[in-house]
Amino acid sequence: MAEDSQLLCRKDRYGGVVVETTKQQCSTEEFKNKLEADLTKWQEIGVRGVWIKISLKDADIVPIAAQKGFEFHHAQKDYVMMIKWLPTDEPNMIPGYAAHYVGVAGFVVNDRNEVLVIQEKYTHSVKAHWKLPGGLAEPGEDLADTARREVLEETGVDAEFLSLLCFRHQHNFSFGCSDMYFVCHMKPKNLDITVGEQEVTKCQWMPFEEYLSHPSLTETNRFIAQTFKSTVLQGSSRIATSGIPSVRTGRNHLLYSIHNCP
Amino acid sequence: MAEDSQLLCRKDRYGGVVVETTKQQCSTEEFKNKLEADLTKWQEIGVRGVWIKISLKDADIVPIAAQKGFEFHHAQKDYVMMIKWLPTDEPNMIPGYAAHYVGVAGFVVNDRNEVLVIQEKYTHSVKAHWKLPGGLAEPGEDLADTARREVLEETGVDAEFLSLLCFRHQHNFSFGCSDMYFVCHMKPKNLDITVGEQEVTKCQWMPFEEYLSHPSLTETNRFIAQTFKSTVLQGSSRIATSGIPSVRTGRNHLLYSIHNCP
Repeated sequence: MAEDSQLLCRKDRYGGVVVETTKQQCSTEEFKNKLEADLTKWQEIGVRGVWIKISLKDADIVPIAAQKGFEFHHAQKDYVMMIKWLPTDEPNMIPGYAAHYVGVAGFVVNDRNEVLVIQEKYTHSVKAHWKLPGGLAEPGEDLADTARREVLEETGVDAEFLSLLCFRHQHNFSFGCSDMYFVCHMKPKNLDITVGEQEVTKCQWMPFEEYLSHPSLTETNRFIAQTFKSTVLQGSSRIATSGIPSVRTGRNHLLYSIHNCP
Repeated sequence: MAEDSQLLCRKDRYGGVVVETTKQQCSTEEFKNKLEADLTKWQEIGVRGVWIKISLKDADIVPIAAQKGFEFHHAQKDYVMMIKWLPTDEPNMIPGYAAHYVGVAGFVVNDRNEVLVIQEKYTHSVKAHWKLPGGLAEPGEDLADTARREVLEETGVDAEFLSLLCFRHQHNFSFGCSDMYFVCHMKPKNLDITVGEQEVTKCQWMPFEEYLSHPSLTETNRFIAQTFKSTVLQGSSRIATSGIPSVRTGRNHLLYSIHNCP
């Protein structure tokens, strides 16, 4: 706990201070007065970044922090984080928030060399086109898990991750954030299709060569198909995973790298 | 513009409505009354997600939206986005916000087979260890650009991207978000080191074999070094980029995949 502060707060290891509204026991008016006094003192003693984590139920604090020159840093469902950089002789060193979406698709190929393809209900394109089942990674999901979940939700096919074929990096995707789209080569455990009606209109197994030369394919999807042909079909190296223990947590993290074919 | 709404708003293509505080010409009190009336009407006519983009200077609106059952979706420096899902017979379909950090490091190797390594000022570990220069991608940056910028800032060495060695995916990195850490094999254009004092305490060129067997190396860094040895040093395939035009924007996006060595 930072000494002498009127608000309950803690120091961070970069010379900053963190305030959480859920830890205060005071009215909104008292919060305002305490914040004003603390800001003056913090500036005097050289505090750097000030963070206020404002719970949704303490939303009254947001206009107060805004008046005191705080800006938004990020928000999650039940809180918004506001920040203020105090040093006047040093550039703002507060790192930004996560700004990447991660999407994952399954390139699911059965023993007859047919690819599992869908058409989507909501599409950015003028005309519908055949694409791979997939979707956004949920917090904490490994790529193989997202691919398996999305393929199952959209097509009813349960598929197993084999290797990573490629990934695409694009910017200004949504709300100015960037997007990474990973494509996994997968093997189906069942062939029966059950269309997930929330998002998909059509789904089928399409012979690989028909898919590769299909007129409705985007250039990205054609690149993916060609990558499958030049790597997996020709038995060259693949991008696969290794579990490596983390120095911070001791848990295994996945590293993706080239594995040479046996 | 959605018809009959009291607030100025627009429809989205998923059956929802988007309100921006900067587009309204009314007092906070009027906003409150209009929002109340609109919510009743929107619920009647089957509107799905309601989005309110609240500018930092309109922060007074945040407590009002919270009272009406809105939750936070995300925030950027100068606004917070709040959302409410209206259908009672359908699960909330509003996609989450970007939840991934992207970090990039340079595995910079000179003609004498020496690796550019640093020790950091702020570290999570108990003891300092040799690591690769790198840092978080800024919005809109390609991996090669982040690697080049961070290597230059931290070491004074200007280096050129050659290929991607590997990447690590880890969860619960910061604010519950996940992190992807990409390692690029790079070639230096200059050898003189200028330590970037904001973040780095030491920097040097270390012979590759000394680095590979260094006792202070984390398992991740040893994995990276071994990947360099088994791919680049042994002349096998590499993970490189191809520019593919996007169907949405017409601009080139980068795809990363295995390229076989000539």
